[in-house]
Amino acid sequence: MTSEAASRAGAVLEIDLGAIVANWRTLAGMTAPAQCAAVVKADAYGLGARPVAQALADAGCPLFFVATLDEGIALRRQLGTQPEIAILNGPHPGTAGEFAAHQLVPVLNEPGQVAEWTALGKSLRDNAPAAILQVDTGMARLGLTAREFAAVIEAPPPIVWRAVMSHLACSDNPGHELNKHQLACFTAAAARFPEVAASLSASCGIFLGRQYHFDLVRPGAALFGVNPCPGRAHPLRPVVRLQAKILQVRQIDTHQPVGYGAAHVMAAAGRIATVAVGYADGWLRSFSRRGCGFIAGMRVPLIGRVSMDLASFGVSAVPEAVAYPGAPIELLGPAYGVDDAAADAGTIGYEILTALGSRYHRVYRESALSPPK
Amino acid sequence: MTSEAASRAGAVLEIDLGAIVANWRTLAGMTAPAQCAAVVKADAYGLGARPVAQALADAGCPLFFVATLDEGIALRRQLGTQPEIAILNGPHPGTAGEFAAHQLVPVLNEPGQVAEWTALGKSLRDNAPAAILQVDTGMARLGLTAREFAAVIEAPPPIVWRAVMSHLACSDNPGHELNKHQLACFTAAAARFPEVAASLSASCGIFLGRQYHFDLVRPGAALFGVNPCPGRAHPLRPVVRLQAKILQVRQIDTHQPVGYGAAHVMAAAGRIATVAVGYADGWLRSFSRRGCGFIAGMRVPLIGRVSMDLASFGVSAVPEAVAYPGAPIELLGPAYGVDDAAADAGTIGYEILTALGSRYHRVYRESALSPPK
Repeated sequence: MTSEAASRAGAVLEIDLGAIVANWRTLAGMTAPAQCAAVVKADAYGLGARPVAQALADAGCPLFFVATLDEGIALRRQLGTQPEIAILNGPHPGTAGEFAAHQLVPVLNEPGQVAEWTALGKSLRDNAPAAILQVDTGMARLGLTAREFAAVIEAPPPIVWRAVMSHLACSDNPGHELNKHQLACFTAAAARFPEVAASLSASCGIFLGRQYHFDLVRPGAALFGVNPCPGRAHPLRPVVRLQAKILQVRQIDTHQPVGYGAAHVMAAAGRIATVAVGYADGWLRSFSRRGCGFIAGMRVPLIGRVSMDLASFGVSAVPEAVAYPGAPIELLGPAYGVDDAAADAGTIGYEILTALGSRYHRVYRESALSPPK
Repeated sequence: MTSEAASRAGAVLEIDLGAIVANWRTLAGMTAPAQCAAVVKADAYGLGARPVAQALADAGCPLFFVATLDEGIALRRQLGTQPEIAILNGPHPGTAGEFAAHQLVPVLNEPGQVAEWTALGKSLRDNAPAAILQVDTGMARLGLTAREFAAVIEAPPPIVWRAVMSHLACSDNPGHELNKHQLACFTAAAARFPEVAASLSASCGIFLGRQYHFDLVRPGAALFGVNPCPGRAHPLRPVVRLQAKILQVRQIDTHQPVGYGAAHVMAAAGRIATVAVGYADGWLRSFSRRGCGFIAGMRVPLIGRVSMDLASFGVSAVPEAVAYPGAPIELLGPAYGVDDAAADAGTIGYEILTALGSRYHRVYRESALSPPK
């Protein structure tokens, strides 16, 4: 069944659950005694929330973060009542009751959400679940302003706080002055909640140093193979491998145009291999003329524009014995990781992951999974 | 149920099936007596192959094109045995039998696929389904070369041909010289198959003139709201409307940085609204600092970088009465169509559609559907 499904698909995406679990354990070890959660929003960054969260829960991850209520409900149904599940976006108006019904911890990001959760607590006779309070310390996206935070301190609402959190805007750039400013602001805010767990850092923030760890860290991208230390050696294990299948190899004459818009013109005669992966599979159109793949370890450039369902690579320098219909071109793997691909596509590894398409045949490897010693 | 699902979701995507059917009828009328198929690959360009193909089949569309075998099998199961279904990518090695088992018409793009289909015909005692032959006339992507085509003409394989086809590389640019070259090449190729239906044009090609219509046209993007005449008046109906929900409205001080990388710094104090849509929803990260939305008909600029699950808009110029948590910001609609969005994101409308995310609450409108007179 698996091999038939693989033979039908245009590409095979391997996801190493063992590497994800190993990465989580590495980060948990780095940050202990802080608690180490796992962020599995956006379908676990495109890798499949169901198998990914199950593997992490089985490994002992006590707390998961997702972005939306629907993601939280799905995860609760899958994982049962045991792990905590927090919802970063908090409640849209009128949805607080559903958070309580599914034992979901909302992150309360603005006064209206605080008011809604307060009202829910009253309607449940103070049996509402705990909530996380987000304060903004420099991101200006979600979270209470300094003035709104002061109002909460002055007149505390009857909410049980699971944690107080904030989010770093520039943690991928250790030298950015905003990091220390946010650290100082958050340290001051957390001091107003001395009995409540404090959480500032996601993947990159963990690598800014121990003072950024507080009581709870929230890695996401780093679990899934994105380098949390851009420009430095990757401290964690790669997770994904994407192999596209060659549909056709063409001999092309000199000066012949290739692809949409005749955007590429062959400088010399050569061979082109077309694979069954395109931007509808999340192989972003911005890879056009800039991306590459690997055949048997040899780099082959992406030629012309990425089509909806197809992309072409120049394979003139590669032996015909390895570039033929049915043979694989590796689009992500050890030689070309998600951060390398992101640089070619003009984006970040996070988007390479979340864009990964639904037509790929997905294989979850668990061989490297082993219980902690 | 529907309204609860809508209240949970970060955005609501409306898809007008009536407009899709109306667009198909318009194109069928323009191209008659040629047959008008519908291309519903890539999940009907992100809009949902199941409801879209059903609406088109109910309207009388006789032939559907998808890209992959898996897409074809799913469509066959849904639509029953009646409509023809063709697979643009043709068979990967070893999969020809599955095409026959599901009555799927392969597009044969290279000699190996022709050989595989020939072998299948022998094993089925000449009861293999018909196939479509693709010849390359200037795209250099899929399709037989001139030499390979000559070989098929000289020694015809025992295949029943449903059609002979090619694909235009520059049909979105009516003045491009490659169009006439491809037309001439294809006219010559089709003349070698006088009893077989000929097909050259997809959405944009249809608007190059009657000589491009031949016996069968294959519109896709034009059905779904992409303008098939770039730079000229849109001849068809818009199809999608995307409304994101405001999570939070923030008062921001002068010189305060906003979003990841502190990429935006406020030139003046103002208000920012953050919505629950990000690049994990297909709102491409390349919209960062270039996109926009609409509140009550007023344009609001996208501020800073698009995050995975969030994007922020400057709403200082919009009354507070229309910009509050829970209120909608329109990201696609009459004022800002898929081609407008594509221009801001540095891509084409096709990618805006195929990237549309799975977390949106989808509403299919059928009110405008009516039987043909």
